Amino acid sequence: MQDKNHQSRRKFIQQTSIVGAGVLLANPLKLFSQTNKINKMSKNIKSKGYAGKDEQGKLISWNFERRPVGDNDIMIDVKFCGICHSDIHTIKGHWGKQRYPQVPGHEIAGIVSEVGKNVTKFKVGDQAGVGCMVNSCMNCESCKNGEEQHCETTGMVGTYGTPEKSSPTGITQGGYSTNIVVIEHFAIKIPKNIELQYAAPLLCAGITTYSPLMKAKFKKGDKIGVIGIGGLGHIAIKLAVSKGAEVYAFTTSPSKVNDIKGFGAREVIVVDSADKLKPWFGKMDFMISTVPYAYEMSDYISCVKPYGFFTQVGQPINGELMINNTNMIFNRVNFNGSLIGGIPETQEVMNYCAENKIYPQIQIIKAEEINDAWKKVVNKEARYRFVIDTATI
Amino acid sequence: MQDKNHQSRRKFIQQTSIVGAGVLLANPLKLFSQTNKINKMSKNIKSKGYAGKDEQGKLISWNFERRPVGDNDIMIDVKFCGICHSDIHTIKGHWGKQRYPQVPGHEIAGIVSEVGKNVTKFKVGDQAGVGCMVNSCMNCESCKNGEEQHCETTGMVGTYGTPEKSSPTGITQGGYSTNIVVIEHFAIKIPKNIELQYAAPLLCAGITTYSPLMKAKFKKGDKIGVIGIGGLGHIAIKLAVSKGAEVYAFTTSPSKVNDIKGFGAREVIVVDSADKLKPWFGKMDFMISTVPYAYEMSDYISCVKPYGFFTQVGQPINGELMINNTNMIFNRVNFNGSLIGGIPETQEVMNYCAENKIYPQIQIIKAEEINDAWKKVVNKEARYRFVIDTATI
Repeated sequence: MQDKNHQSRRKFIQQTSIVGAGVLLANPLKLFSQTNKINKMSKNIKSKGYAGKDEQGKLISWNFERRPVGDNDIMIDVKFCGICHSDIHTIKGHWGKQRYPQVPGHEIAGIVSEVGKNVTKFKVGDQAGVGCMVNSCMNCESCKNGEEQHCETTGMVGTYGTPEKSSPTGITQGGYSTNIVVIEHFAIKIPKNIELQYAAPLLCAGITTYSPLMKAKFKKGDKIGVIGIGGLGHIAIKLAVSKGAEVYAFTTSPSKVNDIKGFGAREVIVVDSADKLKPWFGKMDFMISTVPYAYEMSDYISCVKPYGFFTQVGQPINGELMINNTNMIFNRVNFNGSLIGGIPETQEVMNYCAENKIYPQIQIIKAEEINDAWKKVVNKEARYRFVIDTATI
Repeated sequence: MQDKNHQSRRKFIQQTSIVGAGVLLANPLKLFSQTNKINKMSKNIKSKGYAGKDEQGKLISWNFERRPVGDNDIMIDVKFCGICHSDIHTIKGHWGKQRYPQVPGHEIAGIVSEVGKNVTKFKVGDQAGVGCMVNSCMNCESCKNGEEQHCETTGMVGTYGTPEKSSPTGITQGGYSTNIVVIEHFAIKIPKNIELQYAAPLLCAGITTYSPLMKAKFKKGDKIGVIGIGGLGHIAIKLAVSKGAEVYAFTTSPSKVNDIKGFGAREVIVVDSADKLKPWFGKMDFMISTVPYAYEMSDYISCVKPYGFFTQVGQPINGELMINNTNMIFNRVNFNGSLIGGIPETQEVMNYCAENKIYPQIQIIKAEEINDAWKKVVNKEARYRFVIDTATI
């Protein structure tokens, strides 16, 4: 997710007419340094992580440094970090050129080990998490409205791979690592009644599906279709079911059917041919697609009722998807995309899942298994989220 | 527009699970013949038109026959017929394989010359028009709601190129011809205070832009962007201006700028490079694109405000358009398509334009100039709608 954001943010800024955006991007820390004083006498913090070193996408153990804890920062001893398909897309350069070594990971959960002097939201020993962003301007309308991911000036700073002067490595470094330093505003409180390994995937997979589901303003009993039942899709099902929807899951993996029923889906449609979609044309009140590659979208979109909405959250290579307007004029569906969610909404989904015991279905792995896990994610073999036990790094 | 519909209708029906749709399509007249009795003793009606004979798209003079006037039919002596880009796409097979000879034309205006015994809406001598469809089931919810173009059982029957048993040529034949026989429901009353040559283009270009503009429910002073200022686009501008919008016209033709200002556009943006769109990112309340070919849509879509709508009414070859989801997650725009409008809404735009003196800017041509006019349409040289004087056929 992060570099999707980063790359898009760059594009976005390149494309916008916002005066000064380029300047702010070139010097993103100017603003930041005014509000998050870092003691120049403090030493950088040693960290160890798993980093990509080129577009081959093989991760290797790497010792690196993070910035000292600033006045508004907290340090988190990372305990668990989820593996998101976005990590793979980013490191492999599918969304744009990268700088290396780069530590991916934006589903980060751990324990606060240090707090800056201005910090009020956390104390040492608290459970805390970091999702897909670690900074933004905090002054624009979007930031003030809690939509930091749509920051209108600097753009959001992604959790990994974004150029960042405060980082000794020159870019932000993510959560496949032993610790992270982050401005407290961008850290999420993880309630005591949810274990860290279950909290981690909520910070990207959770919020990315929760936000458009909430925007859909569906009513109890509405039919919601979820396309692609992996890390994001399986949480989307659980969230929609818990909010009262009738959920229809569309998967290409017959081996997932029983699991998916266990997540609460009313029906599972195994789409082994386009024919399988025909009976569902015009039936769904809302659909969300988590598919992270270009795919034949048109017939899926036609499963939504006329004038309903279809939201694509999976990000294909270079973002490119083919849309068939001949179908669109007949199905009358509104197509849109959705990007994670803001910090307040991320806190909301975390609290909601803790309270309602909505836990992702995870497989905890050791650091040495990361490369194997990445292959499995690409091959649709994750069941349903790999979570790295960072004690093994 | 017609065969877009026809082809899409076929696709749509192929894709849907509607029981019996296939049967009804195979025998579309079964239903029709129950309600529009044609006297078997009556002779077919002689007509003369300009027809495509293959995908080369060169039109030639052709004598053919139409069905006798049924009890619910009217015959119209065609006086004028607009040239729509859809005519060209259809005859050239851009939207699917065709049967030939085929007479295109779905912006048809003329004088009623005969009425069936059940006809109540028209009398001989009235001004009348035909747009993009000539039949539908009239029993489904969409038909009952006046959205015949979205007929859920047989699909709409396009004005030309749709298989149709009542037609002596086996397919419907359009308005580049001297007369047309049509069920009265699918004919539009043309008020006396609008001349036929101005009424003709309203029957496709007018309704195709009016319908999504009305659905956008814009308020006075809202900013509306219109992309592609040809036959559809120039009417879209006039309609939106007359309803109180501030209209921004996006064109690739610098030679159109003065005309476009004359149509009432607040500003004309000549898009000779993608850079020209940047200043407009996030500025429009609504946008409509009439571009009938695949084009770089993404930066245009980004001109709409977050959570606003972008409607594509132009139909590219095979319907295919590339969408960039990386842009969509940031711009938060809803993309959709729109297909003409129903009969009541077509009557509405006709009445509205007559009353408010909103006339398309036309160039009247002789039948022998049709092939040349088609070339000009493709080369963006129409100013802004060619209308055939059918007395010259």
